Amino acid sequence: MKAKFVTQKALEKLKSNTQKAFNRSLDRHIKLAVTGFSGSGKTAFITALVKHLTSQATKQNLPFFDVVREGRLIAAKQVPQRALDIPTFDYQSASNCLLADEPTWPPSTQRINTLTLALKFHCESGLRAHLSPVSTVYLELIDYPGEWLADLPMLSQDYQTWSKATLELLQRDAYKDYSGAFLSLLDTFDGKAKVDEQELKTLAQSYQQLLSTLKSETKLAQLQPGRMLIPSDLAGAPILLFFPTKAHCEASEHSQYQQLQARFEAYKQQVVMPFYKQHFCQFDRQLVLVDVLSALNDGVDTLQEQREALAHVMQVFNYGKSGFLKRLFYPKIDKVLFAANKCDHVSPSQQADIALLLNDMLGEQTNELRFSGVSVDTMAISSVQSTQTKVVKDNGQHLECVYGKVLGEQQWTTYLPPQPPNHCLSPQQWPEHGFEFLSFYPQKAQQGNLHHVRLDHALQFLIGDKLT
Amino acid sequence: MKAKFVTQKALEKLKSNTQKAFNRSLDRHIKLAVTGFSGSGKTAFITALVKHLTSQATKQNLPFFDVVREGRLIAAKQVPQRALDIPTFDYQSASNCLLADEPTWPPSTQRINTLTLALKFHCESGLRAHLSPVSTVYLELIDYPGEWLADLPMLSQDYQTWSKATLELLQRDAYKDYSGAFLSLLDTFDGKAKVDEQELKTLAQSYQQLLSTLKSETKLAQLQPGRMLIPSDLAGAPILLFFPTKAHCEASEHSQYQQLQARFEAYKQQVVMPFYKQHFCQFDRQLVLVDVLSALNDGVDTLQEQREALAHVMQVFNYGKSGFLKRLFYPKIDKVLFAANKCDHVSPSQQADIALLLNDMLGEQTNELRFSGVSVDTMAISSVQSTQTKVVKDNGQHLECVYGKVLGEQQWTTYLPPQPPNHCLSPQQWPEHGFEFLSFYPQKAQQGNLHHVRLDHALQFLIGDKLT
Repeated sequence: MKAKFVTQKALEKLKSNTQKAFNRSLDRHIKLAVTGFSGSGKTAFITALVKHLTSQATKQNLPFFDVVREGRLIAAKQVPQRALDIPTFDYQSASNCLLADEPTWPPSTQRINTLTLALKFHCESGLRAHLSPVSTVYLELIDYPGEWLADLPMLSQDYQTWSKATLELLQRDAYKDYSGAFLSLLDTFDGKAKVDEQELKTLAQSYQQLLSTLKSETKLAQLQPGRMLIPSDLAGAPILLFFPTKAHCEASEHSQYQQLQARFEAYKQQVVMPFYKQHFCQFDRQLVLVDVLSALNDGVDTLQEQREALAHVMQVFNYGKSGFLKRLFYPKIDKVLFAANKCDHVSPSQQADIALLLNDMLGEQTNELRFSGVSVDTMAISSVQSTQTKVVKDNGQHLECVYGKVLGEQQWTTYLPPQPPNHCLSPQQWPEHGFEFLSFYPQKAQQGNLHHVRLDHALQFLIGDKLT
Repeated sequence: MKAKFVTQKALEKLKSNTQKAFNRSLDRHIKLAVTGFSGSGKTAFITALVKHLTSQATKQNLPFFDVVREGRLIAAKQVPQRALDIPTFDYQSASNCLLADEPTWPPSTQRINTLTLALKFHCESGLRAHLSPVSTVYLELIDYPGEWLADLPMLSQDYQTWSKATLELLQRDAYKDYSGAFLSLLDTFDGKAKVDEQELKTLAQSYQQLLSTLKSETKLAQLQPGRMLIPSDLAGAPILLFFPTKAHCEASEHSQYQQLQARFEAYKQQVVMPFYKQHFCQFDRQLVLVDVLSALNDGVDTLQEQREALAHVMQVFNYGKSGFLKRLFYPKIDKVLFAANKCDHVSPSQQADIALLLNDMLGEQTNELRFSGVSVDTMAISSVQSTQTKVVKDNGQHLECVYGKVLGEQQWTTYLPPQPPNHCLSPQQWPEHGFEFLSFYPQKAQQGNLHHVRLDHALQFLIGDKLT
């Protein structure tokens, strides 16, 4: 009997040890998702992150990243990824763009990509660093198109709600000139009529054309369904051939309205939900990059729309955590960083205002997120520096200007950026001539080194606690 | 008590009626998959099928298709498809190619496509046709890339077996000139070494290059993995970065060999298996188009390879039916037609020989398929006619020639095709200078009507029994 008792105890100890090892090994993998609405600088961010950690991890370069400042980071290197069916992030091509003699921004994300870094470091301890135990954390970076992020809020909508919200958006002053052709085609559409595939296709194509135009001409974030802009293998499938229309509650079983409803639901279930379950719910940390200055350039309607889009996205981070909803799949993300990227397009003293503006855009939703145990922070960064500061004397005044090569032009320019607002302005408060911030090419690397603004702050918030 | 008994009986009757209605409704949907190794004429076949059924369904045009000959077909038209996530077959573009003033072959299939036809007809009965009951059958046509078909046999192979077979193929006389670069790179590869992602990538890219070259320069059918040729969303994913190599049984856990093995298995489970389960196992009928003449042009090694490829594919049709294997998912296909397409590239009297040759290529596997209850037939067809017959007098002899516009040339040509063999030739029997059959553009449509060779025979075999 005694022998058996001992065995039982040993078994439990073994189980407990296995459990600890399992927890430790889970803890050693951080899935950091990098996203942002289209054009916000995701690819440049990941490239800069890899570059700084693998070859520029000095105290001087990353002073606010504890593991580096404290001299505990031993080395970081790219290792084979675990998910074999996800394309590998093409670090080589992206860094070639940024490190070229005439640097350019890398092309935008068209699909999900991943890259894993192993970070080997000395753990924090009372002992001197080189005597303390060594640990390795695997940082999985996941880069996914902004269009997929913008689709997530559709999960909690039905076709009627979505249609109403989308049509309302398209009719706003800033977009109605673009929407005219689609909206007048929609006027002739009879949702109660029997399914006419050709008519549905024609309208869907007109709506797709509208989304493409809005993507290239404005900074609208909620261009739904996002796969209409990156259709890939689904090009031509009925699941992508839907559009918003007026409600027809009394529509019969084989009506056009009912067909659109079915396609909308199929899109949610077969396109958005698999991404949500297989990827989004697996992320530990999330970075959302926001191009605040371009939104300001685009006008009061777009800033308002980005604010709404951010609010919707924050609700998704909160799915299943709020207590109102009990879901089978819910995000396990416990830290979200919203970063106003490309902040060095304004002068250093103006950068704090951009961070404040972004914080104001996020509004009260951040409180709810924090209440459910998600840490949220906001900051202004530039993952890759694109300007230098130049102080210019004018009439005895010292003006803080930025100096860089304006996108699409050959000349280097010294430029005094307008003052960005530090909170959301109402249409009445909006300046008569709007805002006009310039965009710049990346700065040329020096001795193969990239420069950044507050990338170390971002790293410390996102993964610092896992490297102790 | 009596009342209850009656209710019970009524319930069972209802159940039985529901069951019958269910069976009938299942029976009314036929999923016909159209495939063939790349370049065999799938798109042209589907286009011709739709064209003939929807606008040319006359006794004169389709005399061997019973439902038409007997005057029972009321009408056929395209209806909305059930699967919303599969792209719709682009009938309009394909028929535009074939019906143009200068007709061309439509571009090849890069992904799965579908199109549904509703066929309304009078059922067979002793009564005169127009008095008999009317029924509707939904014919779902599914067009999928030949590359996906060629991948299916991988399901029953492990990495070592696949590597061995693939390397053996690459070293045959007809292909070794193409394979040289890859094979000599492979000589320097050490499977037992620790994973070097860059080296794996370099070799995988060299192998991919080889597959592309073989696809454009030869008629090899087994170009595996097929997604290397149509990578789509998987471009750059490790799952596509594998290649055949020599066996390393003693390879350790983190070796390159073990990594290749893992990628091979992931490819089977995450790429091939989903197609098999979600699509292939749902097909009722299957048409496999074979371009026999191009294989003859390519030489004795290619004919032999196509024979092996067909044998492997036939084993897949038989999965789970043979009694040896009990599987959860197995194909329900009960009729398979192997058709030597483009048969009018030879003269009418030679066409029977092509069908005989194809039958000989299929060999004894057809017996096994028939034994498990699958009907198999072989015939020579041209879904779209590309030549006319011309009898030319030469030295008192009447020569049966074909007349058409040779692919890639501007001239119309009258041409005496060489005699194709009616069985597989051994290397010793192979003619010294090989075979050289010409390829032709489609014939010009007359009054908007396409012409065919034995398309009606093919239709009768594939779906005739469902239209009675």
